[in-house]
Amino acid sequence: MLTFHSQDTKKRQAKTELDGGRLVTPYECPERVDMIIDAVRQRGLGEIRSTQAYGLDPVLAVHDAAYVMFLEQAWHDWVAAGLHGEPIPSIWPARRLRADAIPDHIAGKVGYYALAAETSLCAGTFEAAQASKDVALSALDHVLDTGEHAFGLCRPPGHHAAIDQYGGYCFFNNAAIAAQRALDTGANRVAILDIDFHHGNGTQDIFYERDDVLFLSIHGDPRQEFPFFLGHADETGRGAGKGFNCNYPLASGTAYPEWSDTLDDAIDRLSDYQPDLLIVSVGVDTFEHDPISSFRLKSDDFTDCGQRLKQAGLPTLFLMEGGYAVDEIGTNTVNLLSGFEAC
Amino acid sequence: MLTFHSQDTKKRQAKTELDGGRLVTPYECPERVDMIIDAVRQRGLGEIRSTQAYGLDPVLAVHDAAYVMFLEQAWHDWVAAGLHGEPIPSIWPARRLRADAIPDHIAGKVGYYALAAETSLCAGTFEAAQASKDVALSALDHVLDTGEHAFGLCRPPGHHAAIDQYGGYCFFNNAAIAAQRALDTGANRVAILDIDFHHGNGTQDIFYERDDVLFLSIHGDPRQEFPFFLGHADETGRGAGKGFNCNYPLASGTAYPEWSDTLDDAIDRLSDYQPDLLIVSVGVDTFEHDPISSFRLKSDDFTDCGQRLKQAGLPTLFLMEGGYAVDEIGTNTVNLLSGFEAC
Repeated sequence: MLTFHSQDTKKRQAKTELDGGRLVTPYECPERVDMIIDAVRQRGLGEIRSTQAYGLDPVLAVHDAAYVMFLEQAWHDWVAAGLHGEPIPSIWPARRLRADAIPDHIAGKVGYYALAAETSLCAGTFEAAQASKDVALSALDHVLDTGEHAFGLCRPPGHHAAIDQYGGYCFFNNAAIAAQRALDTGANRVAILDIDFHHGNGTQDIFYERDDVLFLSIHGDPRQEFPFFLGHADETGRGAGKGFNCNYPLASGTAYPEWSDTLDDAIDRLSDYQPDLLIVSVGVDTFEHDPISSFRLKSDDFTDCGQRLKQAGLPTLFLMEGGYAVDEIGTNTVNLLSGFEAC
Repeated sequence: MLTFHSQDTKKRQAKTELDGGRLVTPYECPERVDMIIDAVRQRGLGEIRSTQAYGLDPVLAVHDAAYVMFLEQAWHDWVAAGLHGEPIPSIWPARRLRADAIPDHIAGKVGYYALAAETSLCAGTFEAAQASKDVALSALDHVLDTGEHAFGLCRPPGHHAAIDQYGGYCFFNNAAIAAQRALDTGANRVAILDIDFHHGNGTQDIFYERDDVLFLSIHGDPRQEFPFFLGHADETGRGAGKGFNCNYPLASGTAYPEWSDTLDDAIDRLSDYQPDLLIVSVGVDTFEHDPISSFRLKSDDFTDCGQRLKQAGLPTLFLMEGGYAVDEIGTNTVNLLSGFEAC
């Protein structure tokens, strides 16, 4: 399987993450990319390809234009306002406050466009987010052009990024951008299966009222886990999208037997939908030693997961999302991809 | 004029405030109380009285019961969850996320009940908030019993605290709690005039659909200033409350000539309303050297402000809100109160 990769995804090098009331070094770090590339090479998964530049049009096909402009300007505006830390929101349009008037001041704008505060908007973030969607789109085009499966080593991840909101380390929703491009270039139906530990609230947000993208997510129960305010089982879509959103919230401590049963159920739903393309949002933060998650998958389980995914029999694009046990992220990711390839 | 004061208002001693992407020592500090008490004594404003304990019933008359229970438990739950900093939200029910399901985990609960992230929920916060509303209610009862004006040295402040949300250093809305008690003990109409630099979004939230409390606020334009998402001039009340909410947003850099013209307009509206009681939410963060605000009032302007307030000719309860230029907070506050007394 080809891996698509860009060194520019490492241009985001944030110094701070708000975590449990402290500012810590971010869990979502550029070393994650290096560890995965090393494992791809060592394990002989296949050729590593560089990416094409797609510009912002595919981004604007799913994200709000003012939001994209905000992301481009935020760091510069923050520094110009004399603020000394990295951009982190300290206020937002809370319940019953107004969301119909975007503030002029950058401290208010950051709060308007954020859905979480752990993710600082440091220098290089916009460039890395652009590189990350170029990874996704380059890998997509390979799948569409050749019918072969492919892996896009996206970073920063994308699945928490909503139509006009960033957070959870995500800025552009790479999976949604790729799905939309697939639809715009001939596909009739796309499915996105999100196996990251955290609910893919952004992907759900983008496609919630549509029937041309089936979204399935297996994740930690939002009553206990980030993003807390989306990802419940009763969120099944709205309007034309009714029935095309499927959440599988699982309890903290879930291990592979229950997790893989849930995966099989999701694969059954994929088979019923018969999409022209499957996009897998790959998070390996389901790993038992992930520092910010609470499932108990072991490294070998990812190999089995890849094998099961192959059973869906669909042209498949793997896009990287989360995984914060950095030492094992390469092994776990390549286990999944090679499990899929070996079938 | 009597001053009501409790040493227990200093039980909140937070270590951290999220400010411009950094964690700093909070601007809203217990020394503020000491500086004001010292000035009250040195200037001979009048006797300093201790407070009565009113319990939680007057709090529950304006705040949500589950919110009050949350505030009581938050610090303990945070520590029990193994989180090491002070409780600061890192996610909240953002736009299009769900606000109908309160998370079980404390990290989610904090985000549900917060409207801003600068304000950590440290040990002692609940006790200080209780003491602060006892200050307000003790001062209120003196006004109601004697017809004399009084000053309640509340701390933490209250005007950002909404029905079920804390933030902006505020937990219980002291002015709203006092207004409600005045109504419950015989007053027909109460007016709250908020002259803190920041919009009193919490007070507005609590009374927005009611005509028995007129709320007037003179503050920094929310397009540029905290709380950013409320405080615009077009927020005039809803339902029965239509016409009983009046916001005066003013530009950054506003000095006393324009500010005092605005105050005169507000006093005219007070006179039209003819309340049985006037509560003044006193912030002296309108001061030219306030570290987090941008108006340009000078110390002598507060004396003139007090003189103008006296012209309303109403039984008046002054309750302390903000003011973060600690060295001058005593002078500025007592200038206002003695300006009022001297007329």
